[in-house]
Amino acid sequence: MNFLEEKIVTDGIVKEENVLKVDSFLNHQMDIKLFEQIGEEFKRRFSDEKFTKILTIEASGIGIACITARYFEVPVVFAKKSKSINLDGDMYTAEVESFTHKTTNHVIVSKKFISEDDKVLIIDDFLANGCALQGLIKIVNEAGASVKGIGIAIEKGFQPGGKIIRNLGYRLESLAIIDNMDSTTGEILFR
Amino acid sequence: MNFLEEKIVTDGIVKEENVLKVDSFLNHQMDIKLFEQIGEEFKRRFSDEKFTKILTIEASGIGIACITARYFEVPVVFAKKSKSINLDGDMYTAEVESFTHKTTNHVIVSKKFISEDDKVLIIDDFLANGCALQGLIKIVNEAGASVKGIGIAIEKGFQPGGKIIRNLGYRLESLAIIDNMDSTTGEILFR
Repeated sequence: MNFLEEKIVTDGIVKEENVLKVDSFLNHQMDIKLFEQIGEEFKRRFSDEKFTKILTIEASGIGIACITARYFEVPVVFAKKSKSINLDGDMYTAEVESFTHKTTNHVIVSKKFISEDDKVLIIDDFLANGCALQGLIKIVNEAGASVKGIGIAIEKGFQPGGKIIRNLGYRLESLAIIDNMDSTTGEILFR
Repeated sequence: MNFLEEKIVTDGIVKEENVLKVDSFLNHQMDIKLFEQIGEEFKRRFSDEKFTKILTIEASGIGIACITARYFEVPVVFAKKSKSINLDGDMYTAEVESFTHKTTNHVIVSKKFISEDDKVLIIDDFLANGCALQGLIKIVNEAGASVKGIGIAIEKGFQPGGKIIRNLGYRLESLAIIDNMDSTTGEILFR
């Protein structure tokens, strides 16, 4: 097990309906030393890539993205969630469905902050169905920029998001891929 | 002028109705090297305090809080915005009005992540009317913890938030306090 898998086993809580609570260190309280290990590990895995920008989505992607950005020395842009579509044309937008909250949000990124020269590393805390990630990829493509890498902290490998993204040929690195978890025993099986 | 005031003068845009756009480096695209300077400066100003936790609010406070946390070696908790009040009693909640968006949100923090022993540093990117900040202070007080410091990147000194908080006796450090700005000339006057 790597450092993140160990942390998940120690401090994560498996709930019913395939919910994994990691709010004590990842997406409510944030363990910054752990984030530094995550950033360092992304840097190691993508050491051959020259990114110009990191793109993430509010809110829980921001912390990991900012700490990771220190290792790549690039700025971070975070996509904002918005109920309304921006009509004045200065924003890239995508529709993103949330399975957890049973809602559809628009995510928006100002056109000023992604240009066609950008080589983008997308960072997020979780990958399950992959709707948020698909929205971010759409936005990068719309800008004429290229997605050179995707770094995810925790992937739920039993949900289809990661497989789809890999099938599409994107370079996706998930630091912990969960293939199975059991809310009665609390057991977690990593790939 | 300090480093942040210089950045605001160079890259900030003064809009009508006292709006300052700093989305190219602070709250949409994030300049991580600048955030490191901000974190270092908070560490210098609060060098005599022993914090146990940083509290911020989603979304644009998270980046600064995470980078600042590296200098204090403490975890970050971010308050979540929520349309609904959580009823099961495991959350601290506060009501926060947004003048920009003309809405009222609830902000929530899990009771697990602030305890009465905590000495809290509150971090946010902006202080204007201070509604968000008041909500965060309420939550810390409800937890029986103490607010030992408040670090703000940009304070709009011509709006009442900062004055109220200082009147209440809190130790508030704002790295750039704007006393006046003029959307016709683009001029910004710092305190």
